[in-house]
Amino acid sequence: PGRARRPLLSQLFQPLALPVGGQAGSEGRPGEPTCRSQRLMLQGGLIHPTSPGCYCYLPPTVRAMEKLIKVMDEEMQAVGGQKLNLPSLCSAELWRASGRWDQMGPELFRLMDRHNHGYCLGPTHEEVVTELVASQSSLSYKQLPLRLYQVTRKFRDEPKPRFGLLRSREFYMKDMYTFDTCEEAARHTYEQVCDAYCSLFTRLGLPFVKVQAATGSIGGTTSHEFQLPADIGEDRLVLCPQGHFAANVETLNGEQTSCPTCGEKLTETKGIEVGHTFYLGTKYSSVANAVFCSAENKPQLAEMGCYGLGVTRILAASIEVLSTEDSIRWPSLIAPFQLCFIPPKRGSKQEEEGAVLLDRLYDDLAEALPHLAGDSVLDDRTQLTIGKRLKDANRLGYPYVVVAGKRVCEDPPVFEVWNQNAGEVLYLTKEGVIELLSKVQVP
Amino acid sequence: PGRARRPLLSQLFQPLALPVGGQAGSEGRPGEPTCRSQRLMLQGGLIHPTSPGCYCYLPPTVRAMEKLIKVMDEEMQAVGGQKLNLPSLCSAELWRASGRWDQMGPELFRLMDRHNHGYCLGPTHEEVVTELVASQSSLSYKQLPLRLYQVTRKFRDEPKPRFGLLRSREFYMKDMYTFDTCEEAARHTYEQVCDAYCSLFTRLGLPFVKVQAATGSIGGTTSHEFQLPADIGEDRLVLCPQGHFAANVETLNGEQTSCPTCGEKLTETKGIEVGHTFYLGTKYSSVANAVFCSAENKPQLAEMGCYGLGVTRILAASIEVLSTEDSIRWPSLIAPFQLCFIPPKRGSKQEEEGAVLLDRLYDDLAEALPHLAGDSVLDDRTQLTIGKRLKDANRLGYPYVVVAGKRVCEDPPVFEVWNQNAGEVLYLTKEGVIELLSKVQVP
Repeated sequence: PGRARRPLLSQLFQPLALPVGGQAGSEGRPGEPTCRSQRLMLQGGLIHPTSPGCYCYLPPTVRAMEKLIKVMDEEMQAVGGQKLNLPSLCSAELWRASGRWDQMGPELFRLMDRHNHGYCLGPTHEEVVTELVASQSSLSYKQLPLRLYQVTRKFRDEPKPRFGLLRSREFYMKDMYTFDTCEEAARHTYEQVCDAYCSLFTRLGLPFVKVQAATGSIGGTTSHEFQLPADIGEDRLVLCPQGHFAANVETLNGEQTSCPTCGEKLTETKGIEVGHTFYLGTKYSSVANAVFCSAENKPQLAEMGCYGLGVTRILAASIEVLSTEDSIRWPSLIAPFQLCFIPPKRGSKQEEEGAVLLDRLYDDLAEALPHLAGDSVLDDRTQLTIGKRLKDANRLGYPYVVVAGKRVCEDPPVFEVWNQNAGEVLYLTKEGVIELLSKVQVP
Repeated sequence: PGRARRPLLSQLFQPLALPVGGQAGSEGRPGEPTCRSQRLMLQGGLIHPTSPGCYCYLPPTVRAMEKLIKVMDEEMQAVGGQKLNLPSLCSAELWRASGRWDQMGPELFRLMDRHNHGYCLGPTHEEVVTELVASQSSLSYKQLPLRLYQVTRKFRDEPKPRFGLLRSREFYMKDMYTFDTCEEAARHTYEQVCDAYCSLFTRLGLPFVKVQAATGSIGGTTSHEFQLPADIGEDRLVLCPQGHFAANVETLNGEQTSCPTCGEKLTETKGIEVGHTFYLGTKYSSVANAVFCSAENKPQLAEMGCYGLGVTRILAASIEVLSTEDSIRWPSLIAPFQLCFIPPKRGSKQEEEGAVLLDRLYDDLAEALPHLAGDSVLDDRTQLTIGKRLKDANRLGYPYVVVAGKRVCEDPPVFEVWNQNAGEVLYLTKEGVIELLSKVQVP
C-alpha cells in the first residue's frame, strides 16, 4: 500500500533531457540556453519553452512554486498582509492618468477589446490597487495601515527575453501595496516589509544582499533591491566589505570607490534582482484621490509603498546560485520533492527483500513524519542500476536520496542516505533515517 | 494572546456596502447588478469591478478560491492528475494550425508583441498542451494515461459580460487534458474524470446535474456539462424526473418531450454551467502530431480528452443557488472563514467577563481543533449591538457565529452558537461548542 501512495518516477511528467555523460558542449549556439539555471531547468524537465520568454512550468516547478508561495504567504501575513487578486487586463485610462501608459513604451503589452477600448496586461498594479482603495469612500485612519498583496502572473514585452525564467515575458510576481496615514508610518511599514523579505531569503538559505536602488518607472523616493550575487546577474552592485553600504551602481554619481561610512574600498559584484521595494509617497494616491478620513475627520491622501518579489525568478535564481555545473540544488524548503527512494536493481540479490524493506521504511516514515509522506518519489526504473538512478537523482536535486543498497539485507537493515546539499552519504538503520529526516521542513 | 492571532473584523479589507434595512430597490437600473450573487458579492465586499467583466477578487474571495482549488487538487490528484502551468500568451501560429484562430472570432483577445508576432490570450489550452506532449519525442505507452491539469486565469472577450463572476472576461479555470493509448482507455479516463467532478460537487453540497451537451468550438464527439439549476442560468436543460436522461436542449433535434428510456414527460429547467467535459479523440493530437511509442514500437496518435471547471464561476454559482435574498450562503467546506466570534457590546454588563471568556473559548478551540484556528474572525466592532453584528454576520455567511450573549456570565458560561446553514441557534457550554465544531471540515 505504501508504494501505491507514492508517485512513481516512471509516471511523472518530467520530460528529462539529461546529458548522457559530460557537458555535450551545448553552450553558445544560437537558441541554446544562456545560463546554468536555464540549461539545468530544460534538461531536468522543469520548464518547456513555447514562444520567446514564455514557458510551460512542468509539474516539479509547480510544486516548488506552490511551496514558495506558501512561505511568502506566511511572511506577508506575519506583517498583516491581506491577499487579494487583481485583473490582468488594466484599462488604458488608468495608466494614462498615472502617466505610465506613455512612459512604459514598448515594454507594455497593449490590446483592444471588441469595443475598441484599450488595455494593457499589467506588469504591476499600482494604478488598479490605488483605484480600488480610492473607491472605499469611508476608509478610516483606524483601518490603516492597509497591506494588500497578491501573487499573480505578470506580463512584460522584454526586448530580449533570456536566461529562462530569469528574464521572461510572462512570470509570477508577489506584489504588495501599502497604505499609511503619514510618512513616518509608511517608513515603518517599509522597514517591516523589508525585514519580511530578509526573513524569507534567510529561510530559503539564499545568500542575498539588500542594496539601495533606483526607482525607475515605478517612482517614489526610496528604493531597495534584494539581489543574489551571481556572474550572470544583469545588475552591477558595489558593496562595503564591512556591510556599511551596498548599492546598485545605477544610483551612484560618478565613480564611488570607498565606503561613505568606514572608507574601506568597495567591492564590485553582479547580481540577480529577486525583490524590489519602493517608498512611493503620494505619487499614485494623489492621482486616484485615494484618501482616508483622519482623526480630525478630514480627507487625507494615503502614503503608499509597493513591494515586489519575483516568484518564478526566485526559483530560477536559486538554481542558478546553488547548483553545480550539472546538478540542480534547490533551497531545501521548496524542493519539489524532499525524498527519492531507490529500490534494488531488477534481478539483483537484494531485489525482493530490499523492495519490501524500503516500502516498510516508507510506511514507518509516513507515520512518524506525515508531512513528508506526499513529498517522496519512488524511482521504480529498476531496470537501471542503482548508480545510474543515483546519478539522475543527484542531477535533479532531491535533498535526500534513500537507497536500498548492498547492506539492506543486514540485520537490522542498513540504508544508504545521501544528503545532497551537504554532499555526504550516511549508512543508517530505519530509526536513524527517521531521526535524520525529522529535521526536514516542508512549508 | 488569542485575540492577537485572530483577524479583527474592523481591520479586514472587505469594503461592505450592505443595505441599511430592506432591499433599497437597486435592481433593474442600468449598470446595476443583474443577479443575486452579483449583488450579494458587491454588497459583501467580495468583488470590485474595474472594467466590464473584470473584477478585483477581495480577500474573502481569495480565501474561498484557495480552498476550492485545494479541493480540486485533491480530486484531480486522486485520478492521477499532475499539475502544471501553461502560458497565457499563446502564439497565433498554433491556433491557426488547429483552425481555432478564425473559428473563435471576436471572443479571442488578440495582440501583437514588439516584433509583430501575433498572440491570443488563452481561453483554453488544447493547442499548447498538445504541442508540449508532442515535444516529448520518447513518450512510451507505459507512461499513459497522462492526465495534466492547471488552475490559471483565462480570457474571453464576452460580447456582454454580466452576472458578475458568472460571465466575466477574466476568470479562473481548472482545465485538465488527458492522453490515452486508445479510444477504450480514453473513454475510461473520461468516466473517471466525470466521477471526480461528481465527487467534487457532492463534497461542496451543491445540487448539480450532469447533462449531455454540444461540443462547440472545442470539438470532439462526446461532451457533458455539469449544471446547477437556477432561474438566471443561461442554458436550457431537459431532465427525466427518474434520472434516465438529462440534456442541454442545444443537443436535441426538434422538440423532444419524453424520456427516451422510460417515456416519462421531461421537465425543463435553466442551469448555470460549472463544468464541461469533452472526449476529443485525435482532433488536436493529429494536428500537433502528439504520438507515443506503442507496445509494437510504432508511433501512434494519442486519444485525448479535455475537462474544465470554472473556479471563480463555481464561487458565484454557489452563492447564487445557496443564498437567500439578502444573506450569502457558502458551501461550508469553502466558506472564507468558518467562524465569527461576537463579544459583548461596549458598556454592557457582560463586557469584560464576556470578552475574556470568549478569548478563552477561542484558545481552547484552537488547541482542540487547530485546523479551525486560522479560520475565525473576531467582530471587534463592540460599539455596535450584538444584534446588529449578528445581522451582518448572517449576511456575510459565516457558517458558524459564536456569541458571548446574556448567558455568558452563568456558571458554567453558556455561548450562543448560530449554525447559519441549518438556520438554528444552540446554547452550549465550551465543551458543547468544541463538540459541535469538531464536525467542521476545512480543506
